[in-house]
Amino acid sequence: MRIAVDAMGGDNAPKEIVAGVYKALEEFTDIEIQLYGHEDKMKEFLKEHDRLTIVHCEEVITSEDDPARSVKRKKDASMVRMAQAVKDGNADGCVSAGNTGALMSAGLFIVGRIDGVDRPALAPTLPTIDSKGFVMLDLGANAEAKPEHLVQYAIMGSIYAEKVRGIKNPTVGLLNIGTEEKKGNDLTKAAFPLLKEAPVNFIGNVESRDLLNGVADVVVTDGFTGNMVLKTIEGTAMNVFAMMKDVFMSSVKTKVAAFLVKDDLKGLKGMLDYSEYGGAGLFGLKAPVIKAHGSSNANALFNAIRQTRTMIEFDVTGTIYSTLKKETLHED
Amino acid sequence: MRIAVDAMGGDNAPKEIVAGVYKALEEFTDIEIQLYGHEDKMKEFLKEHDRLTIVHCEEVITSEDDPARSVKRKKDASMVRMAQAVKDGNADGCVSAGNTGALMSAGLFIVGRIDGVDRPALAPTLPTIDSKGFVMLDLGANAEAKPEHLVQYAIMGSIYAEKVRGIKNPTVGLLNIGTEEKKGNDLTKAAFPLLKEAPVNFIGNVESRDLLNGVADVVVTDGFTGNMVLKTIEGTAMNVFAMMKDVFMSSVKTKVAAFLVKDDLKGLKGMLDYSEYGGAGLFGLKAPVIKAHGSSNANALFNAIRQTRTMIEFDVTGTIYSTLKKETLHED
Repeated sequence: MRIAVDAMGGDNAPKEIVAGVYKALEEFTDIEIQLYGHEDKMKEFLKEHDRLTIVHCEEVITSEDDPARSVKRKKDASMVRMAQAVKDGNADGCVSAGNTGALMSAGLFIVGRIDGVDRPALAPTLPTIDSKGFVMLDLGANAEAKPEHLVQYAIMGSIYAEKVRGIKNPTVGLLNIGTEEKKGNDLTKAAFPLLKEAPVNFIGNVESRDLLNGVADVVVTDGFTGNMVLKTIEGTAMNVFAMMKDVFMSSVKTKVAAFLVKDDLKGLKGMLDYSEYGGAGLFGLKAPVIKAHGSSNANALFNAIRQTRTMIEFDVTGTIYSTLKKETLHED
Repeated sequence: MRIAVDAMGGDNAPKEIVAGVYKALEEFTDIEIQLYGHEDKMKEFLKEHDRLTIVHCEEVITSEDDPARSVKRKKDASMVRMAQAVKDGNADGCVSAGNTGALMSAGLFIVGRIDGVDRPALAPTLPTIDSKGFVMLDLGANAEAKPEHLVQYAIMGSIYAEKVRGIKNPTVGLLNIGTEEKKGNDLTKAAFPLLKEAPVNFIGNVESRDLLNGVADVVVTDGFTGNMVLKTIEGTAMNVFAMMKDVFMSSVKTKVAAFLVKDDLKGLKGMLDYSEYGGAGLFGLKAPVIKAHGSSNANALFNAIRQTRTMIEFDVTGTIYSTLKKETLHED
């Protein structure tokens, strides 16, 4: 299978992207990679490989660029060319660690939506304390959502959890401010009965305080709430760790303690690092489009490529299409 | 001034509630307290006090009771009688650590809304890492909000921050998924220009990842999002602390470290304990109604009484009324 990679996206591009690509080529002998980027900037990291094609692109979309506009105007940007390769049938899926909004635009306007999917959704796998992780969507592809979109998110998330994450009959929870059926805002109240009828293993409302405990394998929510919750988890964890560091640096006694426990605490921080789980999928597009974390190192990019490969191997896109089609026929 | 207290609400009632009441009576010689509760259950903790009146109530609203229904039906419940005392002009404000939903119902249906306030808002002071804290509203009094409600929240929160928390010209942020003006969902996009025109020190959008860093003195959001974010902060902090505990218990070496750093880490947990900042105000009602945390001990209840006293002293209710009235006239 053929995977297109944007060499220029993310804080550590192109060095770590290129290193991740070589790692993936070594690990998976069934993949070919097309690497899109500026040759001058990549060349010091490149070496010959028979399953690697380098495609020179003059332009790059930066994190400051306006997402929709840059995708329309920078026709020779590495991210745009990568998406175009998928659209033209020259690649089976793609990976970028660049501007999230731009990748969503490129996915939507170049790769295109699956027939029957109203809104694509941004779906990362988030960490849990038991290290199993869970898929949450939408984390910000669309700020507004209708009840029926949440049903599509549930179906897409379930298929991904089953096919790619290997979870049999994955549980699906609706993110809400209480577990009772009648709780919530207009959106969650309207989505609840629809999810009960949907072809997923719906377990009802779940609360944000239970997310890290692994309360469900798939959690659905609108993009505004999802993005808000993701940033709250990040901000809270970061602040608790920063406060902990201050405590450890406060006296000779605590510095001794810090020395003793340092390595173990690093592991704890790693447990909350979701780049370990691969990138965030843009579900609902005609081919796998994976957003690797902006701060991706070689290992995170390798994980994102592995994830793209698994999505292609188990035909996640095709399964989403046929499941939604059945769902629509069923409704008629 | 006269403060009504529900002796039967919260996990540690009536013992800790009664203890908090005596502490407040000792500290503040200008207050009289009416304590509503079941005499049989309180009597072992009671002693004579010339500024304390005990009012026997047969019933109690539990955390399992349906909020609106229990307030309507349990006429002799301590929480209902407490709210009725405010309504009848026999008390200037009230405090309960009981069922949050029921207290909101009692506030709305018994104490009543200030003319000009469409929706009351639940407004706790949340912790920041610099220990200054910030007021956030609405944290769940209403799951849905309109743009103009967020403006009222901003005005009420600012008055509280200035009068009770002593912050001059407090900054007001709109909780959003990006800092740019055009970011967000329909609600935040419509609220942004209204907040720019409002008589508050509006500093624009703020992100949930920056809340604990004290990004604004007052943060406004709809009750669904606010409740979601609050529970996410709680859940994340709790889980990080639990994971940290596991790390410390994992070997002899880490146990030694734990022994050395134990007391300092307890302080850290205390920094994130928002009962230290008093209870959550129900803003927009005709008198101060304060919800103390369900797990309140005597000290938390004392803080909630102190807060009620300050709100009465600086006439927060009257200031909200006159400011909103001016605002409405200004619009005409």
